[in-house]
Amino acid sequence: MIRSEMILDLKTYLKEKRIIVDEALNDHFTEYSGPASDLIKSMKYSLSAGGKRLRPILCMAGAEAVGGKGRDVVPIACALELIHTYSLIHDDLPEMDDDDLRRGKPTNHKVFGEALALLAGDGLLTEAFSMMTTPELTKLFAPDTILKVISLISDAAGYRGMVGGQVADIQSEGKSVDISVVEFIHTHKTGALLTASVTSGAMLGGGNTSQVDAILSYGRNIGLAFQISDDILDIEGDSETLGKNTGMDEKMGKITYPGVVGLKRAKEIQSALIEKAIESLSTFDYRAEPLRLIAGYIIERKK
Amino acid sequence: MIRSEMILDLKTYLKEKRIIVDEALNDHFTEYSGPASDLIKSMKYSLSAGGKRLRPILCMAGAEAVGGKGRDVVPIACALELIHTYSLIHDDLPEMDDDDLRRGKPTNHKVFGEALALLAGDGLLTEAFSMMTTPELTKLFAPDTILKVISLISDAAGYRGMVGGQVADIQSEGKSVDISVVEFIHTHKTGALLTASVTSGAMLGGGNTSQVDAILSYGRNIGLAFQISDDILDIEGDSETLGKNTGMDEKMGKITYPGVVGLKRAKEIQSALIEKAIESLSTFDYRAEPLRLIAGYIIERKK
Repeated sequence: MIRSEMILDLKTYLKEKRIIVDEALNDHFTEYSGPASDLIKSMKYSLSAGGKRLRPILCMAGAEAVGGKGRDVVPIACALELIHTYSLIHDDLPEMDDDDLRRGKPTNHKVFGEALALLAGDGLLTEAFSMMTTPELTKLFAPDTILKVISLISDAAGYRGMVGGQVADIQSEGKSVDISVVEFIHTHKTGALLTASVTSGAMLGGGNTSQVDAILSYGRNIGLAFQISDDILDIEGDSETLGKNTGMDEKMGKITYPGVVGLKRAKEIQSALIEKAIESLSTFDYRAEPLRLIAGYIIERKK
Repeated sequence: MIRSEMILDLKTYLKEKRIIVDEALNDHFTEYSGPASDLIKSMKYSLSAGGKRLRPILCMAGAEAVGGKGRDVVPIACALELIHTYSLIHDDLPEMDDDDLRRGKPTNHKVFGEALALLAGDGLLTEAFSMMTTPELTKLFAPDTILKVISLISDAAGYRGMVGGQVADIQSEGKSVDISVVEFIHTHKTGALLTASVTSGAMLGGGNTSQVDAILSYGRNIGLAFQISDDILDIEGDSETLGKNTGMDEKMGKITYPGVVGLKRAKEIQSALIEKAIESLSTFDYRAEPLRLIAGYIIERKK
């Protein structure tokens, strides 16, 4: 009974936050005519393609866990979604994964062509940093806190983080690797930005050092667990629910946890990570409840 | 006599600044082993491929023109070069201009493959924003000034600036357009980042509003003039000196000033822009001399 109520609550929480993010993203880009008008269409196409908004929600939940307001961090939350979306567009390009389908819709380059998809990705990534300097933020937060957040997010998204993970991923394809390499790939490719999402929220929400450290630890654990659940869904998931083809990792020789340690052990590692994530929040009060529920959701999610 | 001395001075000035930038860029990326090690190699390959470092030099010269120190703005100067370099790597990719040669060397994707070139570009762009938050800067400048600079540069580089110009460029290829379209392309594709380079320097150098406005106007005029000189060099330049094939614009149906208004008129427009740029600096003292000389250099340059 309590459990199902909690699940209901999380659903409502995720939906409420998703609506806030969707509205903010939709309002941000105004379509215009002129010689570059298709660029906006291309960026908006991928931004509105039905993402879960997990990174923005983690950012808002991170702020709330330390007593801040989720609404206040929306520009950073949206910037994180822009970065995530750019990475998906570039990841789908022919020179990368060459995917035709993303979230049940044709990928960006299938609709707009490869050149425009490349540039839409570049535009989204760059605009993310513009959003981080918007007056909406600078009127609410100290400029040096915003600079720290920009530093955190750029490091997590760049060659020390997500981009480094992507390179490790493609360079390891088809090779026999040990668990340290798959851990490197997963913590960098997916984990880094998820960690930065919840941590940036905690920083802006006014968390003290030990609170921010605890949330960082939470982020690292759920970040890795999330990518492991992606690996598992590629084996056990339903392609229609997922909106993409399953079984692709094995077909493409991708490095995954189930591939390296087996499906059973991968699930055990994932459960242990979720437990550690929830443990990191032991000193937090009810305001961290959404973060605890999101940790559970990562194991239970179907897409 | 006076003229040749001035040219000599500019040469020395450009060389001194270039060395400072080259050293800072070289020190910034440390090669490492591990699953993503080729990413650093790929980024460094294009960064050290013999660029003129015009954007970093403009940034330093902009700071000096208002009484600041060029050395102090080096992290921003380097960040601008990272953004410029990323744009060249992506621009050379097969889905864009499909170029094999850049500055006399094989393009990034010819050496590292298309996937790594794409990610090297992404890594450079993201790292540019990380560099803008480095402690070297935050210990010297007010955080809100740095945020204004990040805002300026991200807008100039993104969909409202450079990326928008790239899209307009590829979408206009082969079409018959009027001068307003070629002006849009040039001011966005090349002008925006050049303008932001010199303006960010003036902002960090401590320029007051009217000084920053004057430098912004200087930047807009030389920015457009610079791209017109690129168009002219593609017709009149020497491919060996340029390190790339000439005559490519016409071959690819690119929109250029000579193509739209003729070579003679393009040169007249260019001269008028340079005159206006120098005029913008009329209230500045000797410390703006490098900016005045750089304006002249844009017309005289051979590569």
